[in-house]
Amino acid sequence: MPFVKEGVEVFTKRIKRYYPFKLVVFPAVKSKSAKQSKKLEAENILAKVPTHSCLVLLDEKGKSMDSIAFANCVQTYLNQSKKHLIFVVGGAYGFDDSIKQKANQLISLSDMTFSHQLIRLIFCEQLYRACTILRGEKYHNI
Amino acid sequence: MPFVKEGVEVFTKRIKRYYPFKLVVFPAVKSKSAKQSKKLEAENILAKVPTHSCLVLLDEKGKSMDSIAFANCVQTYLNQSKKHLIFVVGGAYGFDDSIKQKANQLISLSDMTFSHQLIRLIFCEQLYRACTILRGEKYHNI
Repeated sequence: MPFVKEGVEVFTKRIKRYYPFKLVVFPAVKSKSAKQSKKLEAENILAKVPTHSCLVLLDEKGKSMDSIAFANCVQTYLNQSKKHLIFVVGGAYGFDDSIKQKANQLISLSDMTFSHQLIRLIFCEQLYRACTILRGEKYHNI
Repeated sequence: MPFVKEGVEVFTKRIKRYYPFKLVVFPAVKSKSAKQSKKLEAENILAKVPTHSCLVLLDEKGKSMDSIAFANCVQTYLNQSKKHLIFVVGGAYGFDDSIKQKANQLISLSDMTFSHQLIRLIFCEQLYRACTILRGEKYHNI
């Protein structure tokens, strides 16, 4: 749906005022089972994660936090001086254990389930909000 | 931002396959203080709420629930045979006590804060998801 793409572009542009930011979309893996798909998705993602990265998974089972706590989390990650800070939205079946084990943290954006396309948009808005919180700036409404 | 409007239209159209649904946007109230604005916003909203309505506020301080629990909540509201089921997204300053006192329930979509425009989109997706859950249908991705 084009509206998700448009929304993500709006926030991507805003986030880039604060930090270099890149959104990478992996094609969905269609395998014989959900388990196998998750495993292959995890392999594809991990193959692209550079060493010295901080890896954060956006997962329903992750830690819930408000926007201020999330902003503080982002600051903590940045303070670790890792080369890359990577947030991953899972596919339709969630995350395989292999990627969960490599993750530095699992964060939940909501107890509710949202389509993984919409989660991209929700996350980008929240990351932009975190940037404004960390700089003590006024959030510019959309 | 047009993408929110487009997204809301996509889900509004889908929700209407299940129930009559109408989205009403109230113009923001600009008053001398946040407290006064909230009060006037509450008055404007309550003036439009018909008697025999079930009124649910979407509020950060509300009850968190997953999508299945939210769908069950919607079913419970519908079983009450009230004439209208009304969900309200608050303005920039949240809800005044006067409207909270009239509400049947406060529900939180997330611990995080989202712009109230984006909340409209997030809510519409979640209401569509609830409709599919209640009918035991497959969710059609966006």
